[in-house]
Amino acid sequence: MVFYYIENQSLVSNFSLSNFKITPLSTTENAYYQHVIDFKTKPLGALGLLEKIALQLCKIQKTEKPFLQNPNIIVFAADHGVARYGVSAYPQDVTWQMVFNFLQGGAAINAFCEQNDIHLTVVDAGVAHDFGEITHQDFIAAKQAMGTQPFHLEKAMSLEKAINSLEKGSDLVKKIAQKDCNIIGFGEMGIGNTSSAALIMAIVTGIPLADCVGRGTGVNDEGLVKKLAILETAYNLHIENCDNVLDILQSVGGFEIAMMAGAMLQAAAERRVILVDGFIAGAAALVAVGLAPAAKDYMVFCHVGAELGHRAMLKALAALPLLDLGLRLGEGTGALLAWPLVVSSARLMNEMASFESAGVSHKT
Amino acid sequence: MVFYYIENQSLVSNFSLSNFKITPLSTTENAYYQHVIDFKTKPLGALGLLEKIALQLCKIQKTEKPFLQNPNIIVFAADHGVARYGVSAYPQDVTWQMVFNFLQGGAAINAFCEQNDIHLTVVDAGVAHDFGEITHQDFIAAKQAMGTQPFHLEKAMSLEKAINSLEKGSDLVKKIAQKDCNIIGFGEMGIGNTSSAALIMAIVTGIPLADCVGRGTGVNDEGLVKKLAILETAYNLHIENCDNVLDILQSVGGFEIAMMAGAMLQAAAERRVILVDGFIAGAAALVAVGLAPAAKDYMVFCHVGAELGHRAMLKALAALPLLDLGLRLGEGTGALLAWPLVVSSARLMNEMASFESAGVSHKT
Repeated sequence: MVFYYIENQSLVSNFSLSNFKITPLSTTENAYYQHVIDFKTKPLGALGLLEKIALQLCKIQKTEKPFLQNPNIIVFAADHGVARYGVSAYPQDVTWQMVFNFLQGGAAINAFCEQNDIHLTVVDAGVAHDFGEITHQDFIAAKQAMGTQPFHLEKAMSLEKAINSLEKGSDLVKKIAQKDCNIIGFGEMGIGNTSSAALIMAIVTGIPLADCVGRGTGVNDEGLVKKLAILETAYNLHIENCDNVLDILQSVGGFEIAMMAGAMLQAAAERRVILVDGFIAGAAALVAVGLAPAAKDYMVFCHVGAELGHRAMLKALAALPLLDLGLRLGEGTGALLAWPLVVSSARLMNEMASFESAGVSHKT
Repeated sequence: MVFYYIENQSLVSNFSLSNFKITPLSTTENAYYQHVIDFKTKPLGALGLLEKIALQLCKIQKTEKPFLQNPNIIVFAADHGVARYGVSAYPQDVTWQMVFNFLQGGAAINAFCEQNDIHLTVVDAGVAHDFGEITHQDFIAAKQAMGTQPFHLEKAMSLEKAINSLEKGSDLVKKIAQKDCNIIGFGEMGIGNTSSAALIMAIVTGIPLADCVGRGTGVNDEGLVKKLAILETAYNLHIENCDNVLDILQSVGGFEIAMMAGAMLQAAAERRVILVDGFIAGAAALVAVGLAPAAKDYMVFCHVGAELGHRAMLKALAALPLLDLGLRLGEGTGALLAWPLVVSSARLMNEMASFESAGVSHKT
């Protein structure tokens, strides 16, 4: 798998990445951290993937005693012009209706935030609804437009809007970071956004479009054929002009995806742990990593879901997801369900005894 | 896969199963509970495996609003005579040393119990160490013997000890249940116990022994060859006399496995949710289900681990594990890591709005 940014990185010149000074994680201390992990009272490697997350946390925080504080989930909501042409099992109105559901506390993400005592922030990145009346403390108005343009007919958004979205996402993380939050989960809501994510994935990774397009919220066989046909039209319309990640974002992106990518870049620049939710958050991660490859070092990939392309997307990112539960909900639910495992990874470093301190015999 | 108990159930006559009145879960309310799940504000089936666990919880507790209270993890520790013949990467002393580590709070299971505010009970089912001095409130002395006999030379235990172990496990659950605990996780500690579990699996399921025997705590290639040779000797010694599950338990079982199986049967009889940890707990589940098939209805299979036979064991049980993290630690760690997902499954029933109550449009 060759990433798009590798071939075309020099072309990303019309957007200032210098705002995001992302330091790749140093491997200098790897051997030391790994030694600490290996001498905890358990067989070598017996905590599996948790040990890899523990090592990553140590490297991000530059300590053998990583700590996670004031976790925050940010859900970016936006609409997609293409949704009006029949790519989803649900009407576009569900996007704004679910925003209200999030703010009223009735969605899955609310149930899981409350369970884990995690703060939820809901962002209108570009929902096709006037939210003028909302004054909820956890709602952030950052609307770029009343949804994107239908990308099988024209570009989804202007270059200016794409860059504005990235920067707005970055600004949001800067604000949240002031609350001493060092781990941020990213989720989304947007009818039609598996279509945008599938196109981003196909163009960035070079994986055939048909392997990237799934049933989303649950289109039937007939709906899937229609969805694929529309996305093939979009792909053919834009592929010749997609020379870099910013081209891709404006051609087939979404405001929630662009804003999330900017937020991820800022979180990485500030050395905060990034919890990547599902297929759409994964597309945002592809964009962020395409703009700044080192951002990936700060990402924990929370789950592989039921959406057709998700497994291949994670493979392209060389990501090992924590959960495999057949989820296909978005909202950040996969990030929240994986959160306790990330906490456990930190706890194993802080709470477990070493063979020596516990007086337990080591391997023969 | 034909289960041993199906062919031989009538032969289990020398043990009174009438003590365990386990009611298979009724399917009468399935359609109703599924309707409630389907009309929560999410696409149909979008919470994947969590929805299946939610349905199971509803059926166990006979309510659409399941609740989990006072969870308890019971870790059964015991030794295996075969361990002295070189089937493990660690010396037998590690069993009793880890019991002290559990009681001092330095093991992985302690870190995860504290994280989740779950009570831990440690049981000496048959450790080859005199724990006479321990008065820790969470330690239960139930020693059957100073470890089993080496089962490649003779039967691991007498029939009387096997039955005593089952009954002791049952008694423990009766006591714990008095604390209004309606969900119990089962873990274990015992150097050599993947050997016992592999033999139980091979004999109960008919899967070839070589496909059941893995590296346990981490034997190298040479150690694995030696382990398999010893277990083949044990298999050949006992297979002709293993006509039922009790025969298998006394021939190749362990005290921790037998006691755990009895505990599982009692938990099922009392309609409590059973969290099954890893490969060894899975072998105990095979024993329990072999004695009383309906017990499986009450079991949540928490993870598939790195031990070679675990995936096939779960398939034989038609079990869908919640986690796949490459764990191979035991102690109940997999059960604890899956616990937040079980909580989330209950919460989705209690906290999420319906499409109607939230004013969200349903599928088109």
